[in-house]
Amino acid sequence: MLFKVEMDVNVPQNIDPNEFEATKAKEKKYAEELQKSGKWRHLWRIVGQYKNISIFDVENSEELHNILMALPLYPYMTVRVEALCRHPSSIHEDDR
Amino acid sequence: MLFKVEMDVNVPQNIDPNEFEATKAKEKKYAEELQKSGKWRHLWRIVGQYKNISIFDVENSEELHNILMALPLYPYMTVRVEALCRHPSSIHEDDR
Amino acid sequence: MLFKVEMDVNVPQNIDPNEFEATKAKEKKYAEELQKSGKWRHLWRIVGQYKNISIFDVENSEELHNILMALPLYPYMTVRVEALCRHPSSIHEDDR
Amino acid sequence: MLFKVEMDVNVPQNIDPNEFEATKAKEKKYAEELQKSGKWRHLWRIVGQYKNISIFDVENSEELHNILMALPLYPYMTVRVEALCRHPSSIHEDDR
Amino acid sequence: MLFKVEMDVNVPQNIDPNEFEATKAKEKKYAEELQKSGKWRHLWRIVGQYKNISIFDVENSEELHNILMALPLYPYMTVRVEALCRHPSSIHEDDR
Amino acid sequence: MLFKVEMDVNVPQNIDPNEFEATKAKEKKYAEELQKSGKWRHLWRIVGQYKNISIFDVENSEELHNILMALPLYPYMTVRVEALCRHPSSIHEDDR
Amino acid sequence: MLFKVEMDVNVPQNIDPNEFEATKAKEKKYAEELQKSGKWRHLWRIVGQYKNISIFDVENSEELHNILMALPLYPYMTVRVEALCRHPSSIHEDDR
Amino acid sequence: MLFKVEMDVNVPQNIDPNEFEATKAKEKKYAEELQKSGKWRHLWRIVGQYKNISIFDVENSEELHNILMALPLYPYMTVRVEALCRHPSSIHEDDR
Amino acid sequence: MLFKVEMDVNVPQNIDPNEFEATKAKEKKYAEELQKSGKWRHLWRIVGQYKNISIFDVENSEELHNILMALPLYPYMTVRVEALCRHPSSIHEDDR
Amino acid sequence: MLFKVEMDVNVPQNIDPNEFEATKAKEKKYAEELQKSGKWRHLWRIVGQYKNISIFDVENSEELHNILMALPLYPYMTVRVEALCRHPSSIHEDDR
Repeated sequence: MLFKVEMDVNVPQNIDPNEFEATKAKEKKYAEELQKSGKWRHLWRIVGQYKNISIFDVENSEELHNILMALPLYPYMTVRVEALCRHPSSIHEDDR
Repeated sequence: MLFKVEMDVNVPQNIDPNEFEATKAKEKKYAEELQKSGKWRHLWRIVGQYKNISIFDVENSEELHNILMALPLYPYMTVRVEALCRHPSSIHEDDR
Repeated sequence: MLFKVEMDVNVPQNIDPNEFEATKAKEKKYAEELQKSGKWRHLWRIVGQYKNISIFDVENSEELHNILMALPLYPYMTVRVEALCRHPSSIHEDDR
Repeated sequence: MLFKVEMDVNVPQNIDPNEFEATKAKEKKYAEELQKSGKWRHLWRIVGQYKNISIFDVENSEELHNILMALPLYPYMTVRVEALCRHPSSIHEDDR
Repeated sequence: MLFKVEMDVNVPQNIDPNEFEATKAKEKKYAEELQKSGKWRHLWRIVGQYKNISIFDVENSEELHNILMALPLYPYMTVRVEALCRHPSSIHEDDR
Repeated sequence: MLFKVEMDVNVPQNIDPNEFEATKAKEKKYAEELQKSGKWRHLWRIVGQYKNISIFDVENSEELHNILMALPLYPYMTVRVEALCRHPSSIHEDDR
Repeated sequence: MLFKVEMDVNVPQNIDPNEFEATKAKEKKYAEELQKSGKWRHLWRIVGQYKNISIFDVENSEELHNILMALPLYPYMTVRVEALCRHPSSIHEDDR
Repeated sequence: MLFKVEMDVNVPQNIDPNEFEATKAKEKKYAEELQKSGKWRHLWRIVGQYKNISIFDVENSEELHNILMALPLYPYMTVRVEALCRHPSSIHEDDR
Repeated sequence: MLFKVEMDVNVPQNIDPNEFEATKAKEKKYAEELQKSGKWRHLWRIVGQYKNISIFDVENSEELHNILMALPLYPYMTVRVEALCRHPSSIHEDDR
Repeated sequence: MLFKVEMDVNVPQNIDPNEFEATKAKEKKYAEELQKSGKWRHLWRIVGQYKNISIFDVENSEELHNILMALPLYPYMTVRVEALCRHPSSIHEDDR
């Protein structure tokens, strides 16, 4: 099942830079694993923003919720979720 | 170059249904051609809405503008465009 | 899978009252069938508004989309959808 | 009398994690008691958010106000309340 | 039980003035009866607007919903409802 | 002259609880005096919020401004003011 | 007593131009009379908009309400009202 | 050239009160000088708010920008600027 | 004096296409003349929108107002104006 | 390829003034270099705001993203990006 997720990262101004870099490294590793597993299908940067737009392909809503809650940067994020489905004009059976 | 486009269709309540169906058929054909050409990479329906989220891959902004202006349903749409670029945590060189 | 849906009905001022009453009767019948099938779990009126809040229990996003698109009053509705999941503090395994 | 309540928890970034976990444990216990008593009828998590949607069944507005003000996490919450009533198309006399 | 209700009247520009005056006269009569019964406790005009702010004292949400739906001007109104309760600093047991 | 005022209290999370309780006690005393004088006609709590809706009856705008600026909790409040006048459908000469 | 009023005129696209010009002429005459009487102290155009910002000096809220309701263009206006008072840093006793 | 400026002062809750009073005194002196020079034509308080509405009469945009940037309270302000011009229904050649 | 202007064209759905094309042709001619005169310095299309962003260089606010009011497409536009001035980091004395 | 960028600088109130001045000096130097290279075509101040509007001319979205992320003041900015293209009524082949 497909979901569009937008993640907007708000870096607190008094954060310890080393600690934040370590959290970002964990986030990157976690995102790569989820992409390899096929759960996190697409990941793009929005130009000029510390913000991404992503497409997730999960078993159900609960799985998506658990994936998002485990994002190392989640405490600094504003997250928006929208459920997607196949578009009648799409030429793909399962748009990847 | 990648762009995310959201198209929200507002059907006027006094429109001639036959005419509108004809316009939708043209829209579907046009969308299929653009998908086959690789310009319109992804096309998903947002659940419960007469609205899609699309990813376009075009030469430049002008090409995207011309494609959107030629959409048969454009006069009934609210359109939002955001420029995308590769995300540093993406595992793809060119996320398709 | 659970979804919260809010449906806000905007009655056009120049609509034929008989035709609108007929559409409302169809809507009522359709809503009753979906409730009996268990797909449409809850349906409440928001006080002072021509608006409901509903909980749907469907196989997946596609099923919800098809149900909503077939609502006889859909052309007059503004619809908002949010995916739900079990709350860790809920005392129910499957909150009905 | 039924009310829909949405509770959005904003965790302050400089909070003591142990203290916050203790407050969450109190919140969970309080929520379970209110669910058992029938006052807090439904409790769902919104996917990807530290936010719930709840249905309360109380004697009157004052009882709801007192219940909400006593939530251990109330100081960290943004709360929205809407009064509900039976929907004419509901198949239940008292939708639970 | 107390509710604050704001009613904002939007007069359609192509309405028949005689018909609208007749509807307003019905509205006035209906509002006067509800005030005399004590259900509609207060009714004030907001300066410069075709909009009122009202306080209702009803048995429950359902009664308020039925009163509002029966307003002759309801089809032209945007309505906002908020449940009220006694304020701890009020000097009245039952603020009238 | 009548004004509707909405006061929304935002408690800072690092405030000294004793000091805040003292300020609230002063606020309560001040509100009671203004109610007894007839300046602060009505005071209701909005359900689920640390927010009130009030009706003031003052000589002029300046008097209202001075009353509000002297509220002990003013530094923690978001305040909205709207001027009211008699509604033509009110059954009271001077709605109290 | 002073009020700031912003009036935003929305010209309906199917209005009879002669009729609208006649209404505008009445509006102009009415505005000039109120300015001469001192009730309508200031009247400025906002650049690029069919919108003005005005300062009224009236006995009370009721007088302002009656003046605004009698504006010939009122049916086409969106109006916003804010009560003003003397600023402590103003060098005028009665800022005109 | 005329501009309407709205200045909304947000007092930080941890500011040193003596320092803030000193800044307010400087602001008052600066505002009085600009009023005497004719640059700051009008200055009113919005009722219930720590906010003013002002009319400036300056040579050009640059002069207004420099005046506003030099306001002692500028770091605590949210500022909105709108360019004004003579209204065709004004009875004044140069509305003061 | 420089102003940024954003013009958003909303084409009414029941407009006569020939008449609208004629108005667009007049708009184009008027825009070209103003560009040649140097008053309308820049004119760009926003991608995917029937909307432009423009920079005007005019004597004063009044001149800008008169230019905008005379736009043949003005009755179909939503217009936003912001006054600009030289940026201290600009490398141009007069940014063209 | 052209983009409009709006940058809104929010100075934190507890920042070290010397450090901030040093960052501003770096920003100015960086902005001047980008202007000389032709990448940052236009840079204007919005009157009364610590905010600019800029036009960038870059190879593609990725180049713009990298330029913006490297702005020394980026951590204090809210940034909005919109893709532009040539306007059919522009008299310039490549509007500079």
